[in-house]
Amino acid sequence: MAASKLVEYANAMPEVRAVYEDIMATRKTDWINNFWKALANDPATLRRTWESIKQIMAPGALDPLTKEMIYVAVSVTNQCSYCIASHTAAARKRGMTDAMFHELMAVVGMANETNRLAASYQVEVDEQFK
Amino acid sequence: MAASKLVEYANAMPEVRAVYEDIMATRKTDWINNFWKALANDPATLRRTWESIKQIMAPGALDPLTKEMIYVAVSVTNQCSYCIASHTAAARKRGMTDAMFHELMAVVGMANETNRLAASYQVEVDEQFK
Amino acid sequence: MAASKLVEYANAMPEVRAVYEDIMATRKTDWINNFWKALANDPATLRRTWESIKQIMAPGALDPLTKEMIYVAVSVTNQCSYCIASHTAAARKRGMTDAMFHELMAVVGMANETNRLAASYQVEVDEQFK
Amino acid sequence: MAASKLVEYANAMPEVRAVYEDIMATRKTDWINNFWKALANDPATLRRTWESIKQIMAPGALDPLTKEMIYVAVSVTNQCSYCIASHTAAARKRGMTDAMFHELMAVVGMANETNRLAASYQVEVDEQFK
Amino acid sequence: MAASKLVEYANAMPEVRAVYEDIMATRKTDWINNFWKALANDPATLRRTWESIKQIMAPGALDPLTKEMIYVAVSVTNQCSYCIASHTAAARKRGMTDAMFHELMAVVGMANETNRLAASYQVEVDEQFK
Amino acid sequence: MAASKLVEYANAMPEVRAVYEDIMATRKTDWINNFWKALANDPATLRRTWESIKQIMAPGALDPLTKEMIYVAVSVTNQCSYCIASHTAAARKRGMTDAMFHELMAVVGMANETNRLAASYQVEVDEQFK
Repeated sequence: MAASKLVEYANAMPEVRAVYEDIMATRKTDWINNFWKALANDPATLRRTWESIKQIMAPGALDPLTKEMIYVAVSVTNQCSYCIASHTAAARKRGMTDAMFHELMAVVGMANETNRLAASYQVEVDEQFK
Repeated sequence: MAASKLVEYANAMPEVRAVYEDIMATRKTDWINNFWKALANDPATLRRTWESIKQIMAPGALDPLTKEMIYVAVSVTNQCSYCIASHTAAARKRGMTDAMFHELMAVVGMANETNRLAASYQVEVDEQFK
Repeated sequence: MAASKLVEYANAMPEVRAVYEDIMATRKTDWINNFWKALANDPATLRRTWESIKQIMAPGALDPLTKEMIYVAVSVTNQCSYCIASHTAAARKRGMTDAMFHELMAVVGMANETNRLAASYQVEVDEQFK
Repeated sequence: MAASKLVEYANAMPEVRAVYEDIMATRKTDWINNFWKALANDPATLRRTWESIKQIMAPGALDPLTKEMIYVAVSVTNQCSYCIASHTAAARKRGMTDAMFHELMAVVGMANETNRLAASYQVEVDEQFK
Repeated sequence: MAASKLVEYANAMPEVRAVYEDIMATRKTDWINNFWKALANDPATLRRTWESIKQIMAPGALDPLTKEMIYVAVSVTNQCSYCIASHTAAARKRGMTDAMFHELMAVVGMANETNRLAASYQVEVDEQFK
Repeated sequence: MAASKLVEYANAMPEVRAVYEDIMATRKTDWINNFWKALANDPATLRRTWESIKQIMAPGALDPLTKEMIYVAVSVTNQCSYCIASHTAAARKRGMTDAMFHELMAVVGMANETNRLAASYQVEVDEQFK
């Protein structure tokens, strides 16, 4: 199957348009990125995913920039290229500098290395961590 | 092969002891966790890994708590149980509250979901993200 | 190294041709997709892989469409783009509708999210599940 | 950090109790498994996750058993032991026989093998699949 | 579902016994490890998997010890604890020393780190590698 | 964010040039591949990663070809396309023949399959492997 057809606003059903409008209002932009246009092929998944993202990425105990950097960390670990590209852009918009990006990648690379060392040496969890 | 034998300070070679001492001094503790005691079976990997971690986790463009939470995010994504246990403990020590942990996990779960949705819908990277 | 050279029928060794013929006969098609043409660089792996797939994907306790959708679920989780493209096409040929594809992706996305929540909350397996 | 404390119904806040009651009513059971009791430490994640699962796993274009088997396929691929145990149990309850489980695992194993063969041979996606 | 019931030789069907006997003859041992006893619940998967392993792990262009170490590398990357334990034991039996194990783990850890760095910096493949 | 800008020798800071010179001297080549040019955006990560790779890939208990093949095995398992391309090229330069590559891929594919079978059958680790 080809890559998903992208649903443009002009051709979208009302329920899709409503989500697009909420995305644009929440993000203060007039642009919808391809991820949402692809999900719009399934309006129920589009709505559920957007509602969850909106709730999770809203201000809370963690600041929005930290959340975006965590999103990047997961996406890099999963080697998801769309996700790396889009969330790195989002993190930059929220203030991630080059220096911060570089440190982020150093931590992510290191964590992926030590995760395997812990597995291979079959390290028992310390009592203090239980 | 059984889980790795743990090298205690009392039985350690001088080069291992030197690393243990640096770990304890850097972390202001008199305790060495099992990960290092397992790596000590290979003193070169022990030293290299510790030197890298010390450099990467030191204060820089990102604060130490943010770094620990990123470490947790990667470890959860890789489902490495030792790493989840030890870095969650480290993040708590640096000030991660319950509310922060819960938000962190919500972001990590969500990122793992949308990473798969992006893959399955074979979403093209937007020009704006290139 | 470049991407694998593709072995066309015209230039194939007899043992490779025999597998190609079995693929075309089994699938009632006169077309061989690139995966097999790439594996044909190693005739033993070509034969073994085809024999296993033929046995596993044949009618059995699960119907062929369910099997293809499970194949897609695994390929999406592994973010293998060739595999997503080819097995989504195969599932469609066996009757997967748009609505089924969308539900499939919703389940796969959700499973990838809750897998990480289970890991991060370090949930003990219930006695009832043991 | 220790594994998450489990929140029992008796000690739960009203908003957690409301979710527990919906889980028990939907599943026609008087039992809450540990996953939900662990998530209940974060009532917002508990509610959001349960609402999503309830929507996604409800009857639709795919039957509930197929959905559970897809959940198992993803969980096995991610090597998430809690998830394998709980969703295998759920699939059995919905009618998965031993023969079906065995075929499911054969497909999952095979998909994980061919995903790596496709990656390593760097196979180009066929025009027909685009 | 509980962990799989293990099928002992004494209670095994003739087709399972035949595979067990071939395993013991090929490996010159009178012992069957749990992996095969679990797979024996599905005799077709038992036979297919054993036949594939026997063919792939036999002497060829790579020596048997190298093959076992590659098996360990994959198992560590996937964090599969049974597989790490059993293939590390197999590699040791074929001559892997402590020094070799330690170097193996250093390479595996490093590869997992640089894999993420390559992903995050979105490095274009050099012309020379195509 | 676009793919990383590549730092060419002519425009590089002295500390980056020093690493480039060491790479070229160690590898007896006058060519720097894109991975290093991308990492050069973060000179500290460039230096640390190169120093680690140089130490780990140097002659030791394992020969350099075996190490490169293990690197390929991990990269295929992680589906990191840059890493597969570059380390397959490196392994070929060190003497990996077509036959060796094919066997390597057969082992990697098989290991990824049996890793999932071990997970799904929830196999207990044998006493002999502990």
